[in-house]
Amino acid sequence: MDFSHSPKVEALRQQLQAFFDEHIAANEDAHAAEALAHRDAGRAWTPSALLESLKAKAREHGLWNLFLPQSARVPTGLTNLEYAPLCEIMGRVPWAPEVFNCSAPDTGNMEVLERYGTPAQQARWLDPLLAGEIRSAFLMTEPDVASSDATNIACSIRRDGDSYIIDGRKWFSSGAGDPRCAVAIVMGKTDADAAAHQQQSMVLVPMDTPGLRILRPVTVFGYDDAPHGHMDIELRDVRVPVENVILGEGRGFEIAQGRLGPGRIHHCMRLIGLAERALELLCRRVQARVAFGKPIASYSVWHERIAEARCAIEQARLLTLKAAWMMDTAGNKAARGEIAMIKVVAPSMAERIIDWAIQAHGGAGVSQDTPLAQAYVSARSLRLADGPDEVHRVAIAKLELARHAVREGRGQHG
Amino acid sequence: MDFSHSPKVEALRQQLQAFFDEHIAANEDAHAAEALAHRDAGRAWTPSALLESLKAKAREHGLWNLFLPQSARVPTGLTNLEYAPLCEIMGRVPWAPEVFNCSAPDTGNMEVLERYGTPAQQARWLDPLLAGEIRSAFLMTEPDVASSDATNIACSIRRDGDSYIIDGRKWFSSGAGDPRCAVAIVMGKTDADAAAHQQQSMVLVPMDTPGLRILRPVTVFGYDDAPHGHMDIELRDVRVPVENVILGEGRGFEIAQGRLGPGRIHHCMRLIGLAERALELLCRRVQARVAFGKPIASYSVWHERIAEARCAIEQARLLTLKAAWMMDTAGNKAARGEIAMIKVVAPSMAERIIDWAIQAHGGAGVSQDTPLAQAYVSARSLRLADGPDEVHRVAIAKLELARHAVREGRGQHG
Amino acid sequence: MDFSHSPKVEALRQQLQAFFDEHIAANEDAHAAEALAHRDAGRAWTPSALLESLKAKAREHGLWNLFLPQSARVPTGLTNLEYAPLCEIMGRVPWAPEVFNCSAPDTGNMEVLERYGTPAQQARWLDPLLAGEIRSAFLMTEPDVASSDATNIACSIRRDGDSYIIDGRKWFSSGAGDPRCAVAIVMGKTDADAAAHQQQSMVLVPMDTPGLRILRPVTVFGYDDAPHGHMDIELRDVRVPVENVILGEGRGFEIAQGRLGPGRIHHCMRLIGLAERALELLCRRVQARVAFGKPIASYSVWHERIAEARCAIEQARLLTLKAAWMMDTAGNKAARGEIAMIKVVAPSMAERIIDWAIQAHGGAGVSQDTPLAQAYVSARSLRLADGPDEVHRVAIAKLELARHAVREGRGQHG
Amino acid sequence: MDFSHSPKVEALRQQLQAFFDEHIAANEDAHAAEALAHRDAGRAWTPSALLESLKAKAREHGLWNLFLPQSARVPTGLTNLEYAPLCEIMGRVPWAPEVFNCSAPDTGNMEVLERYGTPAQQARWLDPLLAGEIRSAFLMTEPDVASSDATNIACSIRRDGDSYIIDGRKWFSSGAGDPRCAVAIVMGKTDADAAAHQQQSMVLVPMDTPGLRILRPVTVFGYDDAPHGHMDIELRDVRVPVENVILGEGRGFEIAQGRLGPGRIHHCMRLIGLAERALELLCRRVQARVAFGKPIASYSVWHERIAEARCAIEQARLLTLKAAWMMDTAGNKAARGEIAMIKVVAPSMAERIIDWAIQAHGGAGVSQDTPLAQAYVSARSLRLADGPDEVHRVAIAKLELARHAVREGRGQHG
Repeated sequence: MDFSHSPKVEALRQQLQAFFDEHIAANEDAHAAEALAHRDAGRAWTPSALLESLKAKAREHGLWNLFLPQSARVPTGLTNLEYAPLCEIMGRVPWAPEVFNCSAPDTGNMEVLERYGTPAQQARWLDPLLAGEIRSAFLMTEPDVASSDATNIACSIRRDGDSYIIDGRKWFSSGAGDPRCAVAIVMGKTDADAAAHQQQSMVLVPMDTPGLRILRPVTVFGYDDAPHGHMDIELRDVRVPVENVILGEGRGFEIAQGRLGPGRIHHCMRLIGLAERALELLCRRVQARVAFGKPIASYSVWHERIAEARCAIEQARLLTLKAAWMMDTAGNKAARGEIAMIKVVAPSMAERIIDWAIQAHGGAGVSQDTPLAQAYVSARSLRLADGPDEVHRVAIAKLELARHAVREGRGQHG
Repeated sequence: MDFSHSPKVEALRQQLQAFFDEHIAANEDAHAAEALAHRDAGRAWTPSALLESLKAKAREHGLWNLFLPQSARVPTGLTNLEYAPLCEIMGRVPWAPEVFNCSAPDTGNMEVLERYGTPAQQARWLDPLLAGEIRSAFLMTEPDVASSDATNIACSIRRDGDSYIIDGRKWFSSGAGDPRCAVAIVMGKTDADAAAHQQQSMVLVPMDTPGLRILRPVTVFGYDDAPHGHMDIELRDVRVPVENVILGEGRGFEIAQGRLGPGRIHHCMRLIGLAERALELLCRRVQARVAFGKPIASYSVWHERIAEARCAIEQARLLTLKAAWMMDTAGNKAARGEIAMIKVVAPSMAERIIDWAIQAHGGAGVSQDTPLAQAYVSARSLRLADGPDEVHRVAIAKLELARHAVREGRGQHG
Repeated sequence: MDFSHSPKVEALRQQLQAFFDEHIAANEDAHAAEALAHRDAGRAWTPSALLESLKAKAREHGLWNLFLPQSARVPTGLTNLEYAPLCEIMGRVPWAPEVFNCSAPDTGNMEVLERYGTPAQQARWLDPLLAGEIRSAFLMTEPDVASSDATNIACSIRRDGDSYIIDGRKWFSSGAGDPRCAVAIVMGKTDADAAAHQQQSMVLVPMDTPGLRILRPVTVFGYDDAPHGHMDIELRDVRVPVENVILGEGRGFEIAQGRLGPGRIHHCMRLIGLAERALELLCRRVQARVAFGKPIASYSVWHERIAEARCAIEQARLLTLKAAWMMDTAGNKAARGEIAMIKVVAPSMAERIIDWAIQAHGGAGVSQDTPLAQAYVSARSLRLADGPDEVHRVAIAKLELARHAVREGRGQHG
Repeated sequence: MDFSHSPKVEALRQQLQAFFDEHIAANEDAHAAEALAHRDAGRAWTPSALLESLKAKAREHGLWNLFLPQSARVPTGLTNLEYAPLCEIMGRVPWAPEVFNCSAPDTGNMEVLERYGTPAQQARWLDPLLAGEIRSAFLMTEPDVASSDATNIACSIRRDGDSYIIDGRKWFSSGAGDPRCAVAIVMGKTDADAAAHQQQSMVLVPMDTPGLRILRPVTVFGYDDAPHGHMDIELRDVRVPVENVILGEGRGFEIAQGRLGPGRIHHCMRLIGLAERALELLCRRVQARVAFGKPIASYSVWHERIAEARCAIEQARLLTLKAAWMMDTAGNKAARGEIAMIKVVAPSMAERIIDWAIQAHGGAGVSQDTPLAQAYVSARSLRLADGPDEVHRVAIAKLELARHAVREGRGQHG
């Protein structure tokens, strides 16, 4: 379990940090101004020209698709452990990952296509995704059922000759608001009579397929996250060729399991970067403001919180690195306990620290003048996205209980 | 300390509840649809016609200005204790208080004018406010200083002949986004050389005074709360007649102290109603959804939270009633400890319960499909508005420490 | 819901406080010294002579059996609401309640005998208990089952002619270590085939009955609480006459329900007194000690805790008073939700405040030089005694869920 | 930062675990019975014969003085990182470390003598300590001052010819109750006029020096921890030769800083072992008991806690390993932030998990029938021992604030 950076990774990290400082941190106000101008002009769902220009730059610098694991197609791919410090840097600014073509849900979708796609599927969708030319969505969550239990999924995928006909309702389809979003991976049921985990399949659905209709953007604590968006989507009599199924009928649950591990750990790495940034902002603010005759930084209630924050970040980072190392060395399945742990730990950790940072900033903390309110929402939402904390805690607990199952004749040290 | 409802209050409560059920709860979707239509049409800052029509109805039913304490002008006024159960009902829906002309910051402003205004000030501003014809703002918080320490206030109010000239920057000026907002009470410094708490004054500034410029709406976790709004306002060379000062130069701090007590307790009463609603929604949701083969309500983690929520609401309500009773019987100054306590207790209590309700709702909880995300933001913001929790906790602690000041020769029981 | 003290209660309260200050607070060191001397002399289980002398004084002053509710036998009895402020005072010192013959488990046992005992049972056991001449135990909890679920109780009570024969194992039999303990109320099963809540009965068992054997004192975080004690007791072929059953066979669960309500609220009242004392000690300590150049009281982390403590105590007291008022006016059954709430709230509240007080005291806090460590243990234990928090939370949650049961066609406001 | 075990360490770990299982876990009841027999016979302060016999065995197996860092004297010494998994195993049972001559305060004292002692001091005290023939105490904490601020230390060490004369009062002198305790390291002031951190010195004081008087054992939540003990000690006119000073006059603070780092990390390693054991006991208990018709393990409130516990242990262990690695590679001073972090994290983590385990066990949890109550007390005390959490949090916060000191012209990403 060696968490040191190899020289290769350290060099990449420095290069990424320099790019981040020069092109992203320095452009935060410009990006916000562009988005506000778009919104005021009634075209909030227009992609950012600034971001597109930075994508070109990042690609030139070789800071592109860093998330991709090593494979035949990507001989230079990084391990999860190697990607961690890079992903953490990107997490500091919500729109940064896209600059490096490392943003969800495209990353997960690209991994699915890379691992399970047919050559035809890869040619049509993976290549332009890797090139950053199109974007994609992942249609899993449904408004009418507890979707964390995948067996609840109700969307129907019915075979009809050489086609599948899809009927259902999906929401929180992130990225589907973007006009560049060209394809969705849709999870649905192909066989309600199969074993619980073989009823589901995933199919590729071009966004312009007739019958697929975006009803509205779902807001998240008041944010619509345009132009990315979390869309509410109706699928009615949506017809796609059977070749669009991924891996085969009944393999949807299996793909989901494989897809979600890396997706979750990326979220956690980004949250650590976000928490670091919140703590920095907090530390600067309390040193810059005076209340009742002394700097806020001299009140020990803030020492308590800063110390708790530092302890929590350090611990969450180490656990995330361990989970990454487990995934790299023992596989995603063996690492499922560790993945569940960081999925529980990182969002709560970030949420708490960001909340303290907000409190330190007073009104500015909840406003658009700091990145904190949006950061909070992002951490809070990740206590629900990809399964609520409660579901992951049950998974962790069941592994633990199994480890100490009560057997006959065992004493206290078992 | 008798918290029972008198027959008068019980009758009012039932009448209000009936009105609320028939006209407000039943109209939530309609109100949201109207607001969305306004926004989509590019006129988000237009007042709600629905709300105006309900105001007329509420006034007809005598459910009007219920917040007003008894006085010569309002012989039928209610005590704080009497108002509590009414205010709690209104708190369930964010736009409900305005229906009864009981919404902040107008309530506080009306109390100030009622108590300290000259007859001319009352005729010009209080009467139309009481009639619900105009709205008002309270310009206190400044972006550049820790405004919870009122001595930090930097806005300058300079005498020039028969006028005051005001220069400063104010934000989180709630209600100033509303086109009906006709007047602001502005807190500023008239004499930087006076004793710390006699430097500030409050003056009435018509919103159309030259030099007063609304720069932008400040958002709160992504919400702009249009058409109410929390505005960022510049005051440059704003000139008003000296008659517009309230109570006299150097009395601003004194007015603020008097104004904020009732305002704070109203917030707490509303938060209790909001928390009750969140708990109801939580209880319904967990009984309506199934995950992993059984209703979510059968998982004991939810029993833990529901029980904690019920305990917390009951306790916060009782403490709020005690604070109200203290204000009524001993005065706002004697009740300052109790007011500080509920100001600390109620927002955190509501925040936590709403957060659990969000968690129980999954994605719906953070979306516009439940009132929970906005409710969360409202509770969260109240941990900052009117002074951050930390400031109130210091106040409570100092009272407590003084009670147990170390004197010579005292044992463990004092 | 009027929580004011009547003149009668206020007079009693002042009288009790004066007695407490003069005879109990002033004698804490003497009491500890006596106990230590007993222990060093190898007779830790000897009752305190000091305490016996104070009992006589308390009885002379009429401060005796204050816990007893009004009845034919006790025309001057107090309501629960009236008893609350008195019980709170007694709670400040662990051995104080016994001085006033108001200590558990005798109080609960006396209530059972008063309400359900036959005249013969009352003459033999209730009268000497009321006189403070003997003490008693309540044998309910068993080491081998989760006793919070009364249907788990395994102790067998078998009819044999005119006798019952009792076989079982009971522990945490508080007070059974005292040589003056003359009788135990034993809960056991008379009919394993009856309906779940009619299987249990309670019988009176003199402590000197053959077959009843005290195995050892159970310690609580290292304390044996001698001479009171929490004993581990074996009952083997213990024979008592059938007249010793209380209320009748199969009525044990019913008595337990009735007995435990008042017992629980008394615990909570005492915990409030204990928490008040811990907060006082904390406030004195932080004002008396200097660290890193300034009094500990000037560090705002302590302001946070002191304020939280004050808020928590106030709220717990109000909720306890409400529960008492409900018991008095609507009966113990209608008040079961409120009783469960305070049973959950008060021990945790006290535990947390005492823990802070310990932290403020450094090493002294965990030592015998302050009452804090023992106070902590007492609060902590009450999160288990009379049913663990989890069981009470389920009860509260079920009442709440029933209130919001999902029915057809109901909207968000029910 | 490589946390893998080397083959050497893995072999040691397995050997130690096997010894632990065979000789320690299997002897817990025997050890408790011996201690109880001693106490009942009035000689609680007699060392355990069982433990002495196991010491001999451990030494034979080469499982001896494992804590010792590599040095000229100890060429086979382990790094902190190597020692961590061994120390964790020992932490599962409170008396286990002594079996391996790895128990506090001897370990810290041996390190001091090893690093700073003169050859004569080493010959007289270090050699028999390393051989496990004598034991030692560390007299630092004083009852009358906040000792976490070392400048508060009041004990006077006055030069008089070739002697020092020591006068003071020390308590929580752990291990001083043991009749084998032969020497104490005493911290006191040699020069009240020197710079703040050069006023203190450490001197070696044989326990039988006239004027050194053990006043009493201090209890910790009711435990006296005999025969180890935490003693209250008076030093009056205690005279020792000047050769007994360690390192030189005025070097006491410097030694303390060096001594406390390793001591703290050992405590944390042991706490992790203790927390693991508590979690095991919890998992077994909830699977073994039934309440209200189903195993307690099927209630999801326990899943929440088990998962939280597992997450907390994993994180605390990783942070402790990181701190050990920092100490090994960058030195104790550079690692002071990490040491402070684990000193804050580990005791609270263990305390919380043990508290849950107690709750799962009901009455048994607070009793002598499980190791949990004593484990709780041990974790709780470590939130105070070696400096209260608050002091360490300030240290962590100051490092963090310095990292983000506000300078001119810096933006949000620094």
